[in-house]
Amino acid sequence: MDKERISYHESVQKMYERIKADNMTNVWDRYEAQGIGGVPDRRCTFCMAGARCDLCSNGPCRSDASKDKRGVCGITADGMAMRMMLLRNVMGASTYHYHTDQTIRTLRETARNKTPYSIREPEKLKTFANRLGIDISGSDAEIALNLCEFVEKDFNRPAYEPSRIVEILAPPERKKRWEELGIFPGGIYGEMMLSTSSCLTNVDGYYVSLALKAMRLGIAMAYQSQIVNEYCQDVLFGIPRPHTMRVDLGVLDPEYVNVLPNGHEPFLGFAMVQLARKPEWQEKAKAAGAKGLRVIASIETGQEMIQRWEEDDVFYGFTGNWISQEAVLASRCVDLFAADMNCSLPVAPLYAEKYNFKLMPVSDLVAFEGIEERLNYDPVEAEDQAGKLLDMAVENFKNRNSSGEAALNFPAGEAVVGFSTESILDALGGTLDPLLDAIKSGAIKGVVGMVSCTTLRDYGQDVHSVAVVKELIKRNILVLSMGCGNAAMQVAGLCSPEAREYAGDSLKAVCEALGVPPVLSYGTCTDTGRLADLLGAISGALGGVPVPDLPVAAAAPEYMEQKATIDAIFALALGLYTYVNPVPTVTGAPNLVKLLTEDCREVTGGLLNVETDAVKAVDGIEQHIMEKRKKLGI
Amino acid sequence: MDKERISYHESVQKMYERIKADNMTNVWDRYEAQGIGGVPDRRCTFCMAGARCDLCSNGPCRSDASKDKRGVCGITADGMAMRMMLLRNVMGASTYHYHTDQTIRTLRETARNKTPYSIREPEKLKTFANRLGIDISGSDAEIALNLCEFVEKDFNRPAYEPSRIVEILAPPERKKRWEELGIFPGGIYGEMMLSTSSCLTNVDGYYVSLALKAMRLGIAMAYQSQIVNEYCQDVLFGIPRPHTMRVDLGVLDPEYVNVLPNGHEPFLGFAMVQLARKPEWQEKAKAAGAKGLRVIASIETGQEMIQRWEEDDVFYGFTGNWISQEAVLASRCVDLFAADMNCSLPVAPLYAEKYNFKLMPVSDLVAFEGIEERLNYDPVEAEDQAGKLLDMAVENFKNRNSSGEAALNFPAGEAVVGFSTESILDALGGTLDPLLDAIKSGAIKGVVGMVSCTTLRDYGQDVHSVAVVKELIKRNILVLSMGCGNAAMQVAGLCSPEAREYAGDSLKAVCEALGVPPVLSYGTCTDTGRLADLLGAISGALGGVPVPDLPVAAAAPEYMEQKATIDAIFALALGLYTYVNPVPTVTGAPNLVKLLTEDCREVTGGLLNVETDAVKAVDGIEQHIMEKRKKLGI
Repeated sequence: MDKERISYHESVQKMYERIKADNMTNVWDRYEAQGIGGVPDRRCTFCMAGARCDLCSNGPCRSDASKDKRGVCGITADGMAMRMMLLRNVMGASTYHYHTDQTIRTLRETARNKTPYSIREPEKLKTFANRLGIDISGSDAEIALNLCEFVEKDFNRPAYEPSRIVEILAPPERKKRWEELGIFPGGIYGEMMLSTSSCLTNVDGYYVSLALKAMRLGIAMAYQSQIVNEYCQDVLFGIPRPHTMRVDLGVLDPEYVNVLPNGHEPFLGFAMVQLARKPEWQEKAKAAGAKGLRVIASIETGQEMIQRWEEDDVFYGFTGNWISQEAVLASRCVDLFAADMNCSLPVAPLYAEKYNFKLMPVSDLVAFEGIEERLNYDPVEAEDQAGKLLDMAVENFKNRNSSGEAALNFPAGEAVVGFSTESILDALGGTLDPLLDAIKSGAIKGVVGMVSCTTLRDYGQDVHSVAVVKELIKRNILVLSMGCGNAAMQVAGLCSPEAREYAGDSLKAVCEALGVPPVLSYGTCTDTGRLADLLGAISGALGGVPVPDLPVAAAAPEYMEQKATIDAIFALALGLYTYVNPVPTVTGAPNLVKLLTEDCREVTGGLLNVETDAVKAVDGIEQHIMEKRKKLGI
Repeated sequence: MDKERISYHESVQKMYERIKADNMTNVWDRYEAQGIGGVPDRRCTFCMAGARCDLCSNGPCRSDASKDKRGVCGITADGMAMRMMLLRNVMGASTYHYHTDQTIRTLRETARNKTPYSIREPEKLKTFANRLGIDISGSDAEIALNLCEFVEKDFNRPAYEPSRIVEILAPPERKKRWEELGIFPGGIYGEMMLSTSSCLTNVDGYYVSLALKAMRLGIAMAYQSQIVNEYCQDVLFGIPRPHTMRVDLGVLDPEYVNVLPNGHEPFLGFAMVQLARKPEWQEKAKAAGAKGLRVIASIETGQEMIQRWEEDDVFYGFTGNWISQEAVLASRCVDLFAADMNCSLPVAPLYAEKYNFKLMPVSDLVAFEGIEERLNYDPVEAEDQAGKLLDMAVENFKNRNSSGEAALNFPAGEAVVGFSTESILDALGGTLDPLLDAIKSGAIKGVVGMVSCTTLRDYGQDVHSVAVVKELIKRNILVLSMGCGNAAMQVAGLCSPEAREYAGDSLKAVCEALGVPPVLSYGTCTDTGRLADLLGAISGALGGVPVPDLPVAAAAPEYMEQKATIDAIFALALGLYTYVNPVPTVTGAPNLVKLLTEDCREVTGGLLNVETDAVKAVDGIEQHIMEKRKKLGI
């Protein structure tokens, strides 16, 4: 397979060869078997176009908008495509909120002093609680408990009662627009029920209504699930602050016991690092014949961790994003792969057997065929659970087959990670003004929030994401990167100071003055809410400029799963120009396509742009930013 | 089209001809256009088999279990098929619970004296509240408010906290089994989140785990959503008690103002009947040139209403089930079609335009392309909303084009409706013993709960349901019918005393002695929970015979949508032999098929049987019942 079709990253390209030599199933070969790029005789054209439905027993149905051919129930192609997209969005919202629920559960038990965690950022706790109108006169624990009660009450609000969290956190202009559109949400559970129920056969077949419901759900999700989650994780584990981190497959050393928490939830990962930093655990590993015990960050669990905690010889580094997974698992360096709520491949058991590592689901969401043992995260049990996991890893090391070929000989790269609203403000001296001044002067033309995954559709892993971002910074557009797309940037070297060389002259100068890379590593896809809050702050700092009028855009050059789709829909609700690739499976729905790519501008101010070519994609983003600059008179 | 391929019901067959003559899109032609019976070149064989997925951007993918060909993420055909089935189940659970949420909302506002409704059954309120452990020393209103608070607290419980409602209501033996299997559920919102999140790409790809999650969700849904909903609706609107009801399209008279509430929620329907029974509203209709104003029951909203309220010249009768919908709408007799949460066809606006009726969404779930006006049900506004709807209907009548062809000349049939646990006990003199004795003696061989929809797959509307039920009662098996399948029985004449002629001799004798038909009309699909509660009572009355050992079965001869799939999965969790047709879209998943149709017996005691032939299907049911009789020694 052509190297560019595999991955942008040389390490992954090389590991692919080893996986092939080992005759293991892998994501690249599975992709090819389904048909590269949607060859019509392999990939279903109706599925590609979203013009199909298999929900009820009168189906499966195929629709054809050009002939008004509908499903048996009478739903149009537009209705089919948007209904399935809404259903994907419910899955994304649900999974985000599952994480939030676990975070609140963890915060509550921590406030009760029953977990291995502590309230690391009492100031952030107070700031956030105060913003939500919660009494902050008590102890940190009391404030935390009141915060938990407040947010859970809001989550449980029915859909017909406006969310207090959204009322408090969202920009005034947006709230007004959402009220006018009837998409100001209630509590997230009620909103998920409203959206899910609307997708039932014969309930809501109207694509416009379904699209508005998706936006409504996205708003509830961003403010209630994402912001609450990230801010409470900040309280527990630390506000992200810039620091360097080793990255790429080279962080794996076969002579160490390597423990990989994987997914989206960092709870057990942090608990394991805390334990592994104790000498007795290092001794245990050494007694087993290893040089030591390391916790290695991966995918989004890893991203949650590395943005908050500094590296050392125990919390050693970060491997990469979702498509790197089989490369990591085939490295013969893994002792324990602890799979929390998201992002662990169904083929992991085959890899565990082949490469001698322990695969352990640590969330009730996760299951693998053939793996019966599990250990569902419980904050009260977290220290004990973390110890059990480390024990499993040490035990595994004794039997792990680390032959010579295990040595990867890849160099570890280095990325600056840990940007957040607070740390950006710190870097700017406590005010947004230097950033706003740079934007006003044109030194920074605009800002793109890149929230993305990684996908093999159209290109190899991260190839397109890197191309788009390089093109953006070349044109003096600052990028904040989130999600698996952020990992793409970190491993590709774009989150390091040296990447200023790729930036246009004026952006380069700003980055040099501030001592930051041109791509600011801004966390996980869950940090989309954090970015929305930052945009609200910028809007406020500019005297209430509506979000749709800011010279900013959202970009998802390699969106993959259902969290990404709800992030994109939320970006539209927020009024952002939103670049998305691959082309979503809605092309058989002409009215829906028009709504998303044209008419939406009149609805929320947001707009979806799809484009497979990186330069053309950035042309569109730049044009949008220049229009907004012109409108603002800057 | 062959008449048998259209419908069992002559009225619908005839209306099809009229619809065709009017050149209107209709469910039969749309079905045919998709390919009758799944002709391979029309229907997608991968969709038919459940061996496909379009959730993420690496897809769409097709799988082939025979070659271990997997999706790009590595998910197997078994995982794909069960994941999609779980997602359907979430949609069903969500919609059931949406209804429950509206019922609790209505009960609360009624207790506050803010609705046009009242607490009609204070004894049922007390019995149910007492059963749930709620203090019943206060006023009815206080008890009702406490009940609302109690159940909502349970709904909002996280998935990791056992549901109090399930603990209190479910049979002890079942609870034990569910605990052993790890499928004893928490609150319904948490369970929906758990299931939905598990369906995300790369979360749970294991069909066994997904199937167990579906059961767990089904248990939460049946006890929290269905039972709470139906019992609270009983409290508000009356316990179902047997009475006759006019049925079939003949209940439509073009010379009346005809108002059709449609969907699943009876709130506005009852409010409209209350108003329409007042002389001033009849006068309004007469002033508009009509003979009077009638509320006509339809589909499941209608079923909720007719099981509780007696017919008169205002609440005049019941049309039929979901597939009758276009026949009803084309009758030129409809003035207002009020679409609540479920079951209204996306093509309704085309019919409203053609046949001059007012189409009004009355739930925030429902939307139609081209219909912007809406009136979302709010219990506090219900009387006002009902008045507005009646006004719209009267206004519509003035302009309705009721040409001569509007006269349908179909005779209305008659059905006995309104069986419930309480009314069966009443009919039996206050104890289940006469029924149990008849079962023990063999006069009644067993009991089948028929919870079904209506579908065009395999046969015309209700053809297969009627065939199965006739075969069951012929073999002296008593049938309790629910859902759209219940409407099939009512319109087909099987819920009338005369239907005893179709019954075997001993069942016929029992029915004659008790004065009941051989098919007991037991409400809507939401009454599945009520039936589960009855089975629990029977199990208790027999000294704790486990539910799987009872000579009973569940049957869904024409399941159609996602509420039906979760009902079937719940039946498996309850330990029932469950007959289902059409064959669900899982046939490309061999291990899943084996789990559902064979191995499940060892898991929950339940079993799925699929069979398109009515006689063979009943052979299977009868064999199961005879085995259970033998095991019980009766």
